[in-house]
Amino acid sequence: MEPVEEVQRELLRIRNLRLPSIRVDCTIGPSTMDTSFRFFLPTLAAALIAGVSQADEGMWLYSRPPRELLRQKYNFELTDPWLEHLQKSSVRFNSGGSGSFVSEDGLVISNHHVGADALQKVSTEAKNYLQDGFHARTLSEEIKCVDLELNVLQEIEDVTTRVNLAVPAELTPDEAFKARRRVISEMEKESLDRTKLRSDVVTLYQGGAYHLYRVKRYTDVRLVFAPEQQIAFFGGDPDNFEFPRFDLDICLFRVYENGQPVRVSHHLTWSKSGAAEGELTFVSGHPGRTERSLTVTELEYLRDLQFPATLARLKRLEVLLAAWSGRSEENARRAKDDLFGVQNSRKARDGGHAGLYDPVIMGAKSRAESEFRRRLASLPEHAGAAAAFDRIAAAQGVIRQHRWRYTVLEGGQGFSGELFGIARTLLRAGEERPKPNGERLKEFGEASRPSLELSLFSDQPIYPDYEILRLSDSLTWLTEQLGYGDPTVQKILAGKSPRARAVELVQGTKVQDVALRKKLFEGGAGAVTAANDLMIELARSIDAEARELRKTIETQDEVKKQAHAAISRARFALGGADSYPDATFTLRLAYGLVKGYEENGQAVPALTRIAGLYQRSAEHKNRPPFDLPTRWVKRKSALNLKTPFNFVGTHDIIGGNSGSPVVNRAGEFVGIIFDGNLPSLLLDFAYEEVQARSLSVHSAAILEALQTVYNAPELVRELRTGLRKK
Amino acid sequence: MEPVEEVQRELLRIRNLRLPSIRVDCTIGPSTMDTSFRFFLPTLAAALIAGVSQADEGMWLYSRPPRELLRQKYNFELTDPWLEHLQKSSVRFNSGGSGSFVSEDGLVISNHHVGADALQKVSTEAKNYLQDGFHARTLSEEIKCVDLELNVLQEIEDVTTRVNLAVPAELTPDEAFKARRRVISEMEKESLDRTKLRSDVVTLYQGGAYHLYRVKRYTDVRLVFAPEQQIAFFGGDPDNFEFPRFDLDICLFRVYENGQPVRVSHHLTWSKSGAAEGELTFVSGHPGRTERSLTVTELEYLRDLQFPATLARLKRLEVLLAAWSGRSEENARRAKDDLFGVQNSRKARDGGHAGLYDPVIMGAKSRAESEFRRRLASLPEHAGAAAAFDRIAAAQGVIRQHRWRYTVLEGGQGFSGELFGIARTLLRAGEERPKPNGERLKEFGEASRPSLELSLFSDQPIYPDYEILRLSDSLTWLTEQLGYGDPTVQKILAGKSPRARAVELVQGTKVQDVALRKKLFEGGAGAVTAANDLMIELARSIDAEARELRKTIETQDEVKKQAHAAISRARFALGGADSYPDATFTLRLAYGLVKGYEENGQAVPALTRIAGLYQRSAEHKNRPPFDLPTRWVKRKSALNLKTPFNFVGTHDIIGGNSGSPVVNRAGEFVGIIFDGNLPSLLLDFAYEEVQARSLSVHSAAILEALQTVYNAPELVRELRTGLRKK
Repeated sequence: MEPVEEVQRELLRIRNLRLPSIRVDCTIGPSTMDTSFRFFLPTLAAALIAGVSQADEGMWLYSRPPRELLRQKYNFELTDPWLEHLQKSSVRFNSGGSGSFVSEDGLVISNHHVGADALQKVSTEAKNYLQDGFHARTLSEEIKCVDLELNVLQEIEDVTTRVNLAVPAELTPDEAFKARRRVISEMEKESLDRTKLRSDVVTLYQGGAYHLYRVKRYTDVRLVFAPEQQIAFFGGDPDNFEFPRFDLDICLFRVYENGQPVRVSHHLTWSKSGAAEGELTFVSGHPGRTERSLTVTELEYLRDLQFPATLARLKRLEVLLAAWSGRSEENARRAKDDLFGVQNSRKARDGGHAGLYDPVIMGAKSRAESEFRRRLASLPEHAGAAAAFDRIAAAQGVIRQHRWRYTVLEGGQGFSGELFGIARTLLRAGEERPKPNGERLKEFGEASRPSLELSLFSDQPIYPDYEILRLSDSLTWLTEQLGYGDPTVQKILAGKSPRARAVELVQGTKVQDVALRKKLFEGGAGAVTAANDLMIELARSIDAEARELRKTIETQDEVKKQAHAAISRARFALGGADSYPDATFTLRLAYGLVKGYEENGQAVPALTRIAGLYQRSAEHKNRPPFDLPTRWVKRKSALNLKTPFNFVGTHDIIGGNSGSPVVNRAGEFVGIIFDGNLPSLLLDFAYEEVQARSLSVHSAAILEALQTVYNAPELVRELRTGLRKK
Repeated sequence: MEPVEEVQRELLRIRNLRLPSIRVDCTIGPSTMDTSFRFFLPTLAAALIAGVSQADEGMWLYSRPPRELLRQKYNFELTDPWLEHLQKSSVRFNSGGSGSFVSEDGLVISNHHVGADALQKVSTEAKNYLQDGFHARTLSEEIKCVDLELNVLQEIEDVTTRVNLAVPAELTPDEAFKARRRVISEMEKESLDRTKLRSDVVTLYQGGAYHLYRVKRYTDVRLVFAPEQQIAFFGGDPDNFEFPRFDLDICLFRVYENGQPVRVSHHLTWSKSGAAEGELTFVSGHPGRTERSLTVTELEYLRDLQFPATLARLKRLEVLLAAWSGRSEENARRAKDDLFGVQNSRKARDGGHAGLYDPVIMGAKSRAESEFRRRLASLPEHAGAAAAFDRIAAAQGVIRQHRWRYTVLEGGQGFSGELFGIARTLLRAGEERPKPNGERLKEFGEASRPSLELSLFSDQPIYPDYEILRLSDSLTWLTEQLGYGDPTVQKILAGKSPRARAVELVQGTKVQDVALRKKLFEGGAGAVTAANDLMIELARSIDAEARELRKTIETQDEVKKQAHAAISRARFALGGADSYPDATFTLRLAYGLVKGYEENGQAVPALTRIAGLYQRSAEHKNRPPFDLPTRWVKRKSALNLKTPFNFVGTHDIIGGNSGSPVVNRAGEFVGIIFDGNLPSLLLDFAYEEVQARSLSVHSAAILEALQTVYNAPELVRELRTGLRKK
């Protein structure tokens, strides 16, 4: 995605991408968009857990929707106009979530936690919008967000043939990786030049298909409304991923072009009554990543190494941020969004890891793979696919050996905070930009330039004390991970303790200055060297090794990609084509029922109501995080306490779906996804519908709150009519 | 210490032993009392950091007090009666802290956080004394604590010669370990039988000396007074180890014998004015453990392996307990003391680890060791000591290889909660008790029997949901650490996920029943087997391997012990005898001045006053953990706000000193140790007095609070007169 995010991905993911949202990773590949998304075995998961022949499973491509399934199971006819309307009403938040247009005048609804990053960046010590909420009663009061980019999908083009032609089978993995990068860069550039639309080639079915996604970019996005974080995230970390819930997790933005609210051709109409129990509904959003088609070897790697390592790091960060936040109110404000993201990821990952340790799930995965390999063995024409499993295992062995160093040095986890990422982006931009487009590191390709600049020149606030806190902790961590005596570590520490070195680096860099960044970016490698900046020089000192590690990992990913492609082809040939690929943070359609479930023998109803909010708060003596905003206390008597508040459904969602609209058969807005329950954390690896549920805010609760609690009749009118009153 | 603690040591340490208190360890040796305490190099630390020729350094043995130092530096004459009075007024809390008698009628003062474990155990969902405080206005209202043991040192006997005679040089390490265990058990048993006093042989100067400590045990200890945790731990984790501070970290107990308050021959008199800036004061308490005489190899082991591993585990536990606590008020109550202990240890260990990463400290340690070895090399009669460094390095290499498995399986960290420890103690008691006393595992020796039974038959509450939470997390952790495919792991999990297995184990054991424990303990191995208890059988299934690991570690500890003894002898010979050994949780005397310091160029004054409490709370809008108890809000106007509240001093203290009395030249009580500041976290490895400070509650604040806030004139009178009013 954004190149500056390349080095800061881990923290950015932590900050922006919640569940439902993309997970934090000890990244094993350098890019989110094109690494390791694999073909899924629907029969496995369905048979495995749900025990039904036709579950509400699937994160379906808009170009390959489940028409037949919906016709058979729900007697619902999926028409092209219905699909196009929903597609073009759907919005991707490049910071890591989903949303939708809900008025012709460019009003967009998403989750508060998706907007949190934007809220944090426009807040100050004096005005804490993230905590206290925000409400612009007029256009002129709307606040422009810092480096927020929204995308709306316009077209999908299947470019599989062209990619395959450019990567002939006789190439070595290294050559193949470069050839594929080259052809993809070319296509993206051509498409951008021709259509002026942001163009991303997405790898699906792990090489079974390559699709070019053309999206309209919006970068003038303004904040319209946010509730207090207390009510958006009522119950805090303790109630996160739990149900019943009572969260008003929404945020409203308005998209502008040329200084005016944009007029959109598609937006969702607000349903009169909202979601009802037992109703068929649809979710249109951007699930970030699933791992349903991994081989057993790959799953074991996740289970034994990646999840434990990621969780240890998340817990370390959680303690660091929580302890620092406790020292003062201002510390807490600065770290709030990061801390929330870390806790959220930690809970999600703990749940996913528990799934990997469940012998039922892993046993079924293992049996299904053995059965598939047994079938392949009897079909000589698929000998290549059979061997592919061993190639994956071998590549995984190499990754296992290098991944940790890669994560620390190239993944940037050894250098937390904003400054190192900026410094490295400047360093590499100077080196990469003179190269031919197809030979650059992906994030410096021409097609990515607008997003790169948006991110690199962001004037989000950078606090030296917060930078020192994070950098000194991550340098300590880096030293632990690579060993005190490691020559790279000694070079990084330069004879100082991790903390002393962090202080020196933060005080010795000037890259927090956006004007300087622009100067160095334009000035190129010479200017970057002449700046003689401590942080840039630190990045330079490890860059050869970091690039080498990246190359190693990318090469092995390429090996795995080709192997997975061979497996995919065999699977297609054996009859598995009518399915959906693993999630890739591209637009998908899911469907399901509004439906409760059982937990410990107790029935959990499908919906909660506003009255339940006041009960839950009282149970906790109104103490944080169960305290209510003053407005909600004062307006209690005016509220219709029977209004549905949150609801659960069987939709197949995952991180990145945060903020996805839930629509009914008529395509009307009936709710907005904001979370999954604890059992849903398994959905990374397999679909389940006995207990796993998506969690949404009910559309009626949104109107009731805007009308009665927030005194926002103009927003209620705009949502009801689809037009802003002029 | 207590045998049941043997398996639960890690959690017990977490729960009970704060800083100042013993630290949590990834234990490398099986016992706290006799493992790896080494001779300290005062010249190193003094020269190293303080830069003064005579610092206020030292945790001095009562049998070898710093008379000459005090005479020279402070013109203070340390007399035998003065020392004996202080010694016999000092109290050890076997749960991990210190205290002192402050009235003839057995009144004992310690810290709230030392009493927290006792407070937790007598609390219920309805009466939360840990949180809300407690006040018995009459003897009949005093509450008997659950399995709390207090010790008062009576005699110290030097038994070095007898130990050395019993362990001739020609024995193998394994034989030497057994011979030493045997002679120590014999001496302890003889002493107990003869004197009826609890008798522990303590290894000092790592084999330079063995002393037998005879202590009077008190086990009928009753709760008299505790303030609210809000004020005892005002500022919570954020202000922990910081200064200025405003904590009333005290707790009052009364010791009984034969159902009556004990009449003690020694107690501290309350000072009229309390500690004054610049005053020479003394601290008499039980520092738990220091690592000042470790070799560089051993320090590197701590730096590179033990500290990172311990910290990762603490942070994992902190997140687990904090998240669970958030779900309900009752969860929070149950986990409160554990969570506090974990946070406290985590902050202390982070500080210590930072010290190990400081090139100034490690560089000085390294230079001093090289210099010493250089001197040895030129003295042929000390060739053995020179070689000892290499023997330590070799033993450390073996420990490095086995320690982690040892920690998980024998250290019990893979089986958190109360139940596994109880189950294993029952299993091993059945096997060990029929053996001759000298051949048993140390914790089953006759001398330990009273404490073993106190602990094993404790009726502290055990909550199944809290047990499941901790056991399922620690089984997950165990699986991560040893690997899913490990045969022992597979045996432990028995085909289930860690969580499912934890549920099965907790629901399938009956050892929470104290009557059953007594039956099985008395019934011996046959009864234990016949019980067919799931948890006991789990302990049995890993016991052979756990015992083998313990033997490996104990043997290597023996090798190190002999090597350190050789080094110590050489050091004595080269002139280093007039010093103090590393801390061993035995009674020590420290001295120092009440004195402020500088931080970031700002002067930090030596004392805070009650007025500052109200200011700090207001800065944080009275939000937790800076909220004030209602009583303190209401009584503000009646308080003398100028009363000194907390103060800092240059005393050499460490974990275990919590609750130590601070006395003036006249031996009067002027304050009570409760913490150290952040720079003091270095004291594990070296003394420092530029910034490192002990933190105490001022004696005047205690009286002012009891009088004005808590309306406890009878306690004020008892403290002032040293007699309870009849």
